Amino acid sequence: MMVMTTMKKIAVMGSTGSIGLSTLKVIQANPDKYKVVTLAAGRKIDLLAEQVKRFRPAAVAILNEKLASRLKGILPTGACPPVFFGSEGFVEVATMEQIDTVVSAISGAAGLLPTYEAIRAGKNVALANKETLVMAGAVVMAEAEKQRIQILPVDSEHSAILQSLRGHAREDVRRVILTASGGPFRGLSLEEMRNVTPAQALKHPNWNMGPKISIDSATMMNKGLEVIEAKWLYNLDIDQISIFIHPQSIVHSMVEYVDGSVIAQLGIPDMTIPISYALSYPRHVGNTLVPLDLDRIGTLSFEKPDLERFVCLKLAHEAARAGMSMPAVLNGANEIAVECFLKGKIGFLDIPVIIEKTMWAHEPFAVENIDAVIEADRWARKTARSLVNKI
Amino acid sequence: MMVMTTMKKIAVMGSTGSIGLSTLKVIQANPDKYKVVTLAAGRKIDLLAEQVKRFRPAAVAILNEKLASRLKGILPTGACPPVFFGSEGFVEVATMEQIDTVVSAISGAAGLLPTYEAIRAGKNVALANKETLVMAGAVVMAEAEKQRIQILPVDSEHSAILQSLRGHAREDVRRVILTASGGPFRGLSLEEMRNVTPAQALKHPNWNMGPKISIDSATMMNKGLEVIEAKWLYNLDIDQISIFIHPQSIVHSMVEYVDGSVIAQLGIPDMTIPISYALSYPRHVGNTLVPLDLDRIGTLSFEKPDLERFVCLKLAHEAARAGMSMPAVLNGANEIAVECFLKGKIGFLDIPVIIEKTMWAHEPFAVENIDAVIEADRWARKTARSLVNKI
Repeated sequence: MMVMTTMKKIAVMGSTGSIGLSTLKVIQANPDKYKVVTLAAGRKIDLLAEQVKRFRPAAVAILNEKLASRLKGILPTGACPPVFFGSEGFVEVATMEQIDTVVSAISGAAGLLPTYEAIRAGKNVALANKETLVMAGAVVMAEAEKQRIQILPVDSEHSAILQSLRGHAREDVRRVILTASGGPFRGLSLEEMRNVTPAQALKHPNWNMGPKISIDSATMMNKGLEVIEAKWLYNLDIDQISIFIHPQSIVHSMVEYVDGSVIAQLGIPDMTIPISYALSYPRHVGNTLVPLDLDRIGTLSFEKPDLERFVCLKLAHEAARAGMSMPAVLNGANEIAVECFLKGKIGFLDIPVIIEKTMWAHEPFAVENIDAVIEADRWARKTARSLVNKI
Repeated sequence: MMVMTTMKKIAVMGSTGSIGLSTLKVIQANPDKYKVVTLAAGRKIDLLAEQVKRFRPAAVAILNEKLASRLKGILPTGACPPVFFGSEGFVEVATMEQIDTVVSAISGAAGLLPTYEAIRAGKNVALANKETLVMAGAVVMAEAEKQRIQILPVDSEHSAILQSLRGHAREDVRRVILTASGGPFRGLSLEEMRNVTPAQALKHPNWNMGPKISIDSATMMNKGLEVIEAKWLYNLDIDQISIFIHPQSIVHSMVEYVDGSVIAQLGIPDMTIPISYALSYPRHVGNTLVPLDLDRIGTLSFEKPDLERFVCLKLAHEAARAGMSMPAVLNGANEIAVECFLKGKIGFLDIPVIIEKTMWAHEPFAVENIDAVIEADRWARKTARSLVNKI
């Protein structure tokens, strides 16, 4: 009797980041189901070297040539796979023949190109890099449809939506409700927010995440980007997407149907759950996590977000409604503003100011290919940087 | 061009009760989708006469011959369909050729026989009468499978479970979590419960329901019966069914999967939502209800039930574990105890005492057909009545 092996072969893009590490945990716990084929990382070469020793990938990619040489120096001869580097290197390890699924977890705009090329190469994508859809939703979704591949969300919110849509007719959806923890500054007044430090902004109440997404969570830009991501993933109008502040981060998101029935997905705030679901979709795979204990949690609360204090959320909606190149500009300006805030160059409340001014200065243009997206991103970064220098 | 009509032809059993009225509301709001074929009711002949005038059924059934004559007297000649009566009459109007779906909403054990015969006649069943599965789960589910018909739940909890199971693999279910409002006496001590009156027990905090189910909600026997119903509907072990007290009655129930992901169905407490879903399954049909507003509700809370104060819940679990004729005995004894409490013959805390003593006196026997179920029910009622007389 022949036994079909259904081992899924995976490229982990951004393997040394928070999502990458959780992905490797899921893979390691299920050696009969998943195998790492390639790894890609930015600057953490010691950690990448450890991962190479443990997972024995067929190839790896790293940020630049210098780091590539250093990585080869660390790894014992014979235990070193081909090392690619730079943007071309990332594309190389995201598109190799034997890959089934690419986990797209490179942070920020840098994740766009390898993810897009993976789709073009017919790979399924487990998407953590929300910039891919924020910047280039129309182009990416059209390519995904053409290649008949699946883009499965890794974000806990979008995974919750996916799980709440399964088994119900898409025509019956009235709206989608994204939940948001509200971040570390949910209770602060605008005046109190003015002087918060990067260290305070990096302390998320529920989730343990990378620095960029932690700041995005503190400004709530993260939720704004998620609205745009949800729009593309699930073919929704912006007006069909609501946001509720839910400080406990237990209800990860909901779908409301035309009869008033609301389906929600709940769970402990642990990224291995949505990562695992993206890899095993539509099945659920067991794990050793402590189950959700609603009795111990006691209460779940919900409130509407305050757009006066969280201006980034308002800006994201405006960019989504403007469409064309505007979401890419929003995203590019935000990346620069967050970077400058983390470096202490600007204050927390300057972040939305930089983004808004960049958006005002932008003349939206049609985005029909990735080059146009990259052009919008480049323009936004340049403009945002010059605005930062004027502060 | 030929247009296929997919008008669903419906028998509404228990049309003058709370569920029956809500069912007729759903049907009336969707005249292009649903048509009443038959109606069956107990004693409320004036209301039934109104329903006959409005819905023009092909036949009706009522409790006894005397009421049947009186109904014929009320209705104008020419506007009176054939009127059947008694147990045979109920079976007659539940099994007529042109019926697609039987809404089984006759309260208590009286609903069992017409529901079972409807299944034998190959009708799909929208099940509100939980006694059907509590008393005769094995027999009824085997017949449903044989006839390849669907039993779709009308209970908000079981509808929530059905909606939370759709689109996910049954093998991936870890457990089901039934929510319970806790009823009107959730916060009372045993001492305080001793002297509650029927009027107090009939006041449910969230749901507007018939008297029997309102008392069952106050004793929490209702949740116990729902555990047994869920076991049969979804082929679960009793240990796979948990209960959480959730006083707001917004989360109607949940399903936990092996990865720790929990899918829940939420909604305002309005029975037309699960009734509508049972009729339109697996689609959702729009309505004019006010949507759920979690922002306004603010918080949802959860706690474990107290089996010391709500003994009926413990007894239901014991009956479910004992199996065979014991659940039918639990149910029969409960119906007598509730009836006697409503008539002021026994106190609120005597309800579990009567049930427990009846169960103790029972020698469980195998239940392989409906006659055996009816025998167990009869024995339980007789025994419970004699126990009441000794109080």
